[in-house]
Amino acid sequence: MIRETDMPSNPTAAILIIGNEILSGRTQDVNTKFIAGRLAALGHRLEEVRVVPDVAERIIRAVNELRAAYDNVFTTGGIGPTHDDITSECIAAAFGVPWEKHQESWDALERHLGHEQFNEARQRMAMLPRGAVPIPNSVSIAPGFSIGNVHVMAGVPRIMQAMFAGLETVLARGTPIAMRAVHGLRVKEGSIAAGLSAIQARYPQVDVGSYPFYRESGSGVAVVVKGTDVEALEAAIGEAESLIAAEGITPVRGEPPV
Amino acid sequence: MIRETDMPSNPTAAILIIGNEILSGRTQDVNTKFIAGRLAALGHRLEEVRVVPDVAERIIRAVNELRAAYDNVFTTGGIGPTHDDITSECIAAAFGVPWEKHQESWDALERHLGHEQFNEARQRMAMLPRGAVPIPNSVSIAPGFSIGNVHVMAGVPRIMQAMFAGLETVLARGTPIAMRAVHGLRVKEGSIAAGLSAIQARYPQVDVGSYPFYRESGSGVAVVVKGTDVEALEAAIGEAESLIAAEGITPVRGEPPV
Repeated sequence: MIRETDMPSNPTAAILIIGNEILSGRTQDVNTKFIAGRLAALGHRLEEVRVVPDVAERIIRAVNELRAAYDNVFTTGGIGPTHDDITSECIAAAFGVPWEKHQESWDALERHLGHEQFNEARQRMAMLPRGAVPIPNSVSIAPGFSIGNVHVMAGVPRIMQAMFAGLETVLARGTPIAMRAVHGLRVKEGSIAAGLSAIQARYPQVDVGSYPFYRESGSGVAVVVKGTDVEALEAAIGEAESLIAAEGITPVRGEPPV
Repeated sequence: MIRETDMPSNPTAAILIIGNEILSGRTQDVNTKFIAGRLAALGHRLEEVRVVPDVAERIIRAVNELRAAYDNVFTTGGIGPTHDDITSECIAAAFGVPWEKHQESWDALERHLGHEQFNEARQRMAMLPRGAVPIPNSVSIAPGFSIGNVHVMAGVPRIMQAMFAGLETVLARGTPIAMRAVHGLRVKEGSIAAGLSAIQARYPQVDVGSYPFYRESGSGVAVVVKGTDVEALEAAIGEAESLIAAEGITPVRGEPPV
């Protein structure tokens, strides 16, 4: 992991996934990978992910721990109209502010749904923590919002992604975190471990990772280097390439095929 | 979320994912869904998942927080021979025990690899926290182990799955956590929210979840009920079915098609 001093201009981030459906094994989380990739491009360092159940005290505690520890916190899940959607009121409780009718959201929902359909359950979606700023999104009327350094998004991936697109325009930028990969078939991690360790020591400003892969088409190791210092990145990946070649194996730039 | 008092015989669990590759967006985590599903079948309640980077102090802190809070902690990642594989020594530090040569693992690795290939990097894989018990697995010589209530597994899914199979034979069992689902096309969450809330109130011993889905074939809502009380489970899902039917929509048992 890249140490804080190596990327002083890069904001830190955490993701908080709110949802029993992930903890029960019902649903495969795909939001983490999406947000992580986008944060890297924006130059934010994702430092922690937590998944907690739809239990108020658990959500409140996690929000407060994470917002104190990182520059930005991105939450997913729990902003719909049903009884298990309690994220919004928990965020209000975490910030110690009232949870109240947000007139602009109320009007937008009523206009969108029609007065007849705008029942009590849906009216709850127009309740936001005081001081929250709605996150616009192009695909739904789901009430995402930002408050302080916490960004509250839907759990449904296509809606979350639309919200993140809205957020990207307002988030601070850091130097983008770039990645380079090289892989070799039949490479054994244990054979290149000492060499990789030496590369990491020579380029402390980048992060050198070693990842075995197992595919129908063959097995091997991928070396992945990431960081904001492109010159060091190129030098380190070049040395990893030589390390694989020294094993008598042809190194291939990029990730192994899927 | 089901409250503790409702499932007194069910052990609690957390997953700790150790890996920069998840936080950088390189790798899609699939271990959580696998472990979560198996834990439900074993009657363990998964209550939290955390992803942390390959940074010693972060791993040590997370291990100690989670092992104090839950009956079992399952870790994935960081047990290979390379410089970024620091899980084992961090677990030793978290437990405050020496990290030392484990003779049985040493002998097995040396026998498997041959004396020539058993270099310094691979010898590190035979170092375990004092008191650790190796987790046997059928597909590799990767050195998974249990110490106290912490179970340390590989990050590579097929190896992790083989290790979990080894663990299953020794983990305590609770009453299995069962799930029932019903879904309806064109159902709107906001229209059934009040009814669902009433079902949850009538069956506090089960967990009623509402999940919108969006598919090429159509959109709608799935209602998922889970818990250990099968009678309550059947009654609650039956009422959810009636709720959908009352909307003039044909309810279909099971999850929506993928």
